[in-house]
Parts: sequence; structure tokens; C-alpha cells
Amino acid sequence: MQDLHTLMEWVKQFSQEREWDQFHNPKDLSIGMVTEAAELLDIFRFKTSEDMQLLMVNEKGREHIGEELADVMYFLLRFADMYKFDLADELKQKLQKNALKYPVDTSKGSNKKYTEG
Amino acid sequence: MQDLHTLMEWVKQFSQEREWDQFHNPKDLSIGMVTEAAELLDIFRFKTSEDMQLLMVNEKGREHIGEELADVMYFLLRFADMYKFDLADELKQKLQKNALKYPVDTSKGSNKKYTEG
Amino acid sequence: MQDLHTLMEWVKQFSQEREWDQFHNPKDLSIGMVTEAAELLDIFRFKTSEDMQLLMVNEKGREHIGEELADVMYFLLRFADMYKFDLADELKQKLQKNALKYPVDTSKGSNKKYTEG
Amino acid sequence: MQDLHTLMEWVKQFSQEREWDQFHNPKDLSIGMVTEAAELLDIFRFKTSEDMQLLMVNEKGREHIGEELADVMYFLLRFADMYKFDLADELKQKLQKNALKYPVDTSKGSNKKYTEG
Repeated sequence: MQDLHTLMEWVKQFSQEREWDQFHNPKDLSIGMVTEAAELLDIFRFKTSEDMQLLMVNEKGREHIGEELADVMYFLLRFADMYKFDLADELKQKLQKNALKYPVDTSKGSNKKYTEG
Repeated sequence: MQDLHTLMEWVKQFSQEREWDQFHNPKDLSIGMVTEAAELLDIFRFKTSEDMQLLMVNEKGREHIGEELADVMYFLLRFADMYKFDLADELKQKLQKNALKYPVDTSKGSNKKYTEG
Repeated sequence: MQDLHTLMEWVKQFSQEREWDQFHNPKDLSIGMVTEAAELLDIFRFKTSEDMQLLMVNEKGREHIGEELADVMYFLLRFADMYKFDLADELKQKLQKNALKYPVDTSKGSNKKYTEG
Repeated sequence: MQDLHTLMEWVKQFSQEREWDQFHNPKDLSIGMVTEAAELLDIFRFKTSEDMQLLMVNEKGREHIGEELADVMYFLLRFADMYKFDLADELKQKLQKNALKYPVDTSKGSNKKYTEG
């Protein structure tokens, strides 16, 4: 699988060929992430567990889902590239921070947020 | 920079140590993406271009933004891993599809959606 | 219960006393709606039906939910007031439109979107 | 303009005729609010102030915006009705709470969040 840097370069080339850097301010790129993630979520609105299982083995369903995942990633990579965030490093640091909020022994099998009792 | 597979493995290990696979259905993982992307967007709510420029060179601001980017990526990677989507391949395909919707010559410097006139 | 106009006036007064009209452009008010709706959704992230039933009879839970509903409504009313949309009229028209997309006989008890088979 | 109760009854009747109460759990209704608010926001993605001003006096643009506002309101009213929240009361309480977070003298003309310095 390609590394993050390669993917970021694809997205950069696509955007720069179209001279879109001028539109890629932090607010609009974040809007991009939210609206595309909401399109993904919309696929599952009102759906039951069984509906979702069927969707996950349905070719057209998977194609739709795959496109929305790609759209979220496009904006995530573009944001990181434009404003110089190292996504691998940010993820590593966040997992370390979350490991303190969610210690294995108390979080195991629990869906509680760390702010909940 | 690490490849996507390595990052996906970090996220998988973090989740599986806590026995969270049971909560990671498509609907809730998509909710994760949307809510974290919305937390990122919230940072820029009502902010002007100048506000955002200052934020981008502010250490605390960058730390906050980096964490939200990591949170979006966590759910994106988890979704891809749980339901077997190849993110690099999905991105490549989506860029090819978007290249047809947004031909370079007509899209250059334009913020119009392909559905707009 | 108060009419919509009264509620809109409360929100207007609150905003104008603080001279916030200048920030209330369509993009940022829509960001307001999305981010507040995402905060509401976040309450139910990873929650089971049973978790949600308990939350709905829990005083602190209801208070939290009520606040997020109010926040969504604040931005909805502000948008309608600033840009002169008659929410009652818009709702009436949309229900008429949706009645055609979702005829009672074929939609009864179904969670399918009108775009689905 | 109609009162909130009348609007809530329209939405209730529309939903109950289709036997949709069974799908209207808190999580999916919140998903409804987020996804519809994101569709509204999507209209303004990458748009400049000038673009938005033009959109606001464009008949087709206003129709699109009005529909998305109606969709957000549909889910807001449905949630309040299903789970017995008094929206007027919640709004009044929230404005009182926000008045303490954002005192007029320090908030006037400021786009800073109360958590910001």
C-alpha cells in the first residue's frame, strides 16, 4: 500500500493543476471533511445492523461507501499538506494521549466516554 | 512517513486491546468521522482569514488542530480496516472520476461545483 | 407554546445586543447548525438502544440534550431571520414535496430512501 | 406565523402516517439533523461572500436553501416531539446561560468563543 506522502502528492497535483489552492483555506477544507463524512453517514441513516451487513457485501453499496471514504481522505490529506501537519506523527501522539484517557483495564469492552462516570 | 498500513495497524491494536470491535459498526464509525470533523470545523467557526492565519502559527492552535485531524484519521482508518476498503485504491479511483467531472481547462481557478452551470 | 416569530426575536435581540450580525453570514451560520447538531449526535456515539433509553430519563442527560437542541435551533432561527426565510412555509412546502417522494402506501413501515429500489 | 406546536403536529402526522416512529430513535434523528445541516453547509462550500450574496437573491438558490432549512427543522421538531423536549423553554434557558458566558460588554463585536482568552 502506498505511503501517506504519495497520496498527499496525488491530491496536491490534482488541486494545483486546477489552481484550487486559493480556495483551500482551513475553514473550507474542514467544511469539505464534514460534508463528505456526512454523506458517508447518510448512507447508514435509519439503517439496521442487518441492512448494514447487506450493504457491506453489495457491490454498488461498497462502491458508494468507498467514494465517500476517498472524499474524506482527499480533504484530510489536502489540509495536512497545505498547513504542514504530519498526519502519522499526529496520530501517534493522539493514540498516546488517548491511551491515558482510556487505560486498557478500565476501558476494556466499555463504550463509555472518558468524561462519563 | 509511515505507510497507511502501519497507521491502520496502530489504530487496530489500540481498538482491539480495548475490545472495541463490537462498537465499530459502519454507522458509529461514520458518526465518529462526522463528529471529529465537526470539532475541527468548530475551531474555525466565525473566524476571519486573518484569525485563521494567526491560529496556524500559534503552537496551542496547531496542537488542537493536529488532534482533531488525528481523530478524523483514526475513524477513517478504523472503517477501512474493519470493512476492508483499500484507501489508496479508493482515492486513486475517485481522483480519476473527479478528473472527468472537473476537466482542467474548465475547472481552472473556478470554485464551481460540477453540478453548477 | 410560543410562536416561531417570538423565538426568532429572542435570538435576534441576543445577537444584536452583542453586534454579531457581522459574523452571521450564511456559511458560518450553517457551520453553527452542523457543529451543534454534531455535538448532539456525539452524545449518542457508540450508544446502544438501552443506553439511550436510560439517558432519556436521566436528568443530567436530558439537560445536555436540551442544550444541544437549543443550540441547533438558535442557528436555524438566526439564519431564517437574517436571510428572510419563512420556516413554517418552508416546512409546509417540504412536507408536500416529501409526500410525493414517499407515498403512504409504499413507504409505510419502510426505512428505504426514495432513491433506493 | 404558526406556533411551534402546530409545526410539530405536521411533522408527527407525516411520520405516523408512514409508521416511522420505529426508526426515530435519538441517534438516527440526530444523524438526520447533522446530515441535513451538512447539505445546507455544502451549498456554501468554497463560496466567497460575493457568491453567497448572489445566491441569496437567486430564486433557485433560495429554494434549495429553504428546503435544507426545512429538513433540519423536520428532525429538530421530530426529536422534540418524540422525546418530550419543550424547544421554546430550552431556547430560553440556553439564551440565559449564554448571556452569562457572553456578557454584552465584553462580547460586543467580538467573534471569540468564551473559552478563548
